Amino acid sequence: MLPIPEYQEQFLRYLESQNFDKEPETLYQPIDYILQLGGKRLRPVLTLMTAEIFDADYKLALPAALAVEVFHNFSLIHDDIMDDAPLRRGKITVHEKWNINTGILSGDAMLILAYQYFENYQPKTFRKLTKLFSKTALEVCEGQQYDVDFETRNDVTIPEYLKMIEYKTAVLVAAAMKMGAIIAQTSKENSRLIYDFGLNLGLAFQLQDDYLDAFGDPKTFGKQVGGDIIENKKTYLYLKAIEFSKPEEKELLTQLFLLHLEDNEKKIKDVKEIFNSTGASDATQKAIQEFTLKAFDTLENIDISKDKKAILKDFGQNLMNRNV
Amino acid sequence: MLPIPEYQEQFLRYLESQNFDKEPETLYQPIDYILQLGGKRLRPVLTLMTAEIFDADYKLALPAALAVEVFHNFSLIHDDIMDDAPLRRGKITVHEKWNINTGILSGDAMLILAYQYFENYQPKTFRKLTKLFSKTALEVCEGQQYDVDFETRNDVTIPEYLKMIEYKTAVLVAAAMKMGAIIAQTSKENSRLIYDFGLNLGLAFQLQDDYLDAFGDPKTFGKQVGGDIIENKKTYLYLKAIEFSKPEEKELLTQLFLLHLEDNEKKIKDVKEIFNSTGASDATQKAIQEFTLKAFDTLENIDISKDKKAILKDFGQNLMNRNV
Repeated sequence: MLPIPEYQEQFLRYLESQNFDKEPETLYQPIDYILQLGGKRLRPVLTLMTAEIFDADYKLALPAALAVEVFHNFSLIHDDIMDDAPLRRGKITVHEKWNINTGILSGDAMLILAYQYFENYQPKTFRKLTKLFSKTALEVCEGQQYDVDFETRNDVTIPEYLKMIEYKTAVLVAAAMKMGAIIAQTSKENSRLIYDFGLNLGLAFQLQDDYLDAFGDPKTFGKQVGGDIIENKKTYLYLKAIEFSKPEEKELLTQLFLLHLEDNEKKIKDVKEIFNSTGASDATQKAIQEFTLKAFDTLENIDISKDKKAILKDFGQNLMNRNV
Repeated sequence: MLPIPEYQEQFLRYLESQNFDKEPETLYQPIDYILQLGGKRLRPVLTLMTAEIFDADYKLALPAALAVEVFHNFSLIHDDIMDDAPLRRGKITVHEKWNINTGILSGDAMLILAYQYFENYQPKTFRKLTKLFSKTALEVCEGQQYDVDFETRNDVTIPEYLKMIEYKTAVLVAAAMKMGAIIAQTSKENSRLIYDFGLNLGLAFQLQDDYLDAFGDPKTFGKQVGGDIIENKKTYLYLKAIEFSKPEEKELLTQLFLLHLEDNEKKIKDVKEIFNSTGASDATQKAIQEFTLKAFDTLENIDISKDKKAILKDFGQNLMNRNV
């Protein structure tokens, strides 16, 4: 096993060895652009790591890791069009830098390119990886659609919200890990367990993202703190606050979440107060803790050495502390 | 071998046996809608026919045929967004009936669904089909991008134009046929030849579409005759007219192709006169003839019975007469 930054490094080297300097330029330049925007490369690193956890050379997992990263960036391009987002990782988004049509078509090409990286594998592995990938990609689309649908609904339940973030975020983390397991040809049971580990860790990660969006440190969070509140996003925090609030708090919170303001300072402050006073903040932290522990419990049953379990647990803890 | 309408019938029956009544409805309803819009189902019929040409039961080819049709309809949804098209097959387009975001996301889901239909095949066949499909799908995206790029260029050459329609249209016809050949496990040489047959037939078909768009019978063509002229599309007819025209004709044609009018009757008449007087119409018909003959020549070398060659030739001729 290598240290995490080494997997990042190796993945970036592999990414840079790919040639996106192809014709038509107008199709491939945006692909090159978004893939160079950076990010933690969390998902591909998990694919590489997991391959080594199950005793395969991480190099074998590089094409699958790239497939996952290219797919993730495809979904970012299309989501940014749908959300009308001007910035991604602090840089101008593809559809803003070029136009919506370019965003659509370059995104489509990336989805296909992602599939092509699996062609590096032999038929049986190819079929397993591609099948898992299709299932996951479709769930990500469904998750995105639920997210869109929830914007105009006032009766979203906590289980519905959890299903949405599971599909939109957690399944790709889980699949990224399972791909490493498939490439390493470990047992079905190990593959299933590492998927569950990734799924619960992904859920914990997304709930923590919801939490930090309101209560994070602007210096380290990376995104605009309060962004979800400004956009009236019905996150776990909001849904729990609605559930726990007394009638007058509920009325106030509902009213605040109808506002579209220029200056959001007071709105953010008021909403955060309700998140705290209703116990929504505590409930969210509890849920993060529960999903993290569930992930670590799953780890216990995987047939690998204690050292390797410790590495995965360590990675999970660092991820939750946002140190990865 | 069955008569062509029977393949259409069997394909439609298979399509109807698929369940798109899934959650989230907002994602799957547009998919069901576009797949029910009709059309000749040319591509999937070719997959079924080709399987039987090479002695396999067409039923084995149904999932691949559906993959091709679902992919084709995915590309229609995204193209219609890019072209801002209000109508498709005389019905309201997906992004107009719902919205652009729905068009993007339901399209994405269809691209993934197309891949999933190949999961009906065993690893080796699955890998061959998926690989051919990815290559083809990427070429279709590249073709669409070239088409977009050509709108703002004044120096498009005939070879560039032919490459664009090859990628945008012909490769999918070719791949649809080759998939039937792969499923029937015929020789590599036969697979290659049937691909070439489909490619040249697809090119002839698209050039004829260009021709009929200007000179077709409004009663039978199905689309608005003169549509390409109204939209100033630089088709084969236009490029040949520019190539063959004297300076004053060239100037007039160039000017006419800058106009965006309410009433296009006179513009269409004037442009068609130039297409005729320059010899562009004749050149286009000659090119259609050449690609059709090239397809029929390829047929000669395929290792199948004379009867089957006759069936494919007959299909090609009916297609060119728009009787299919």
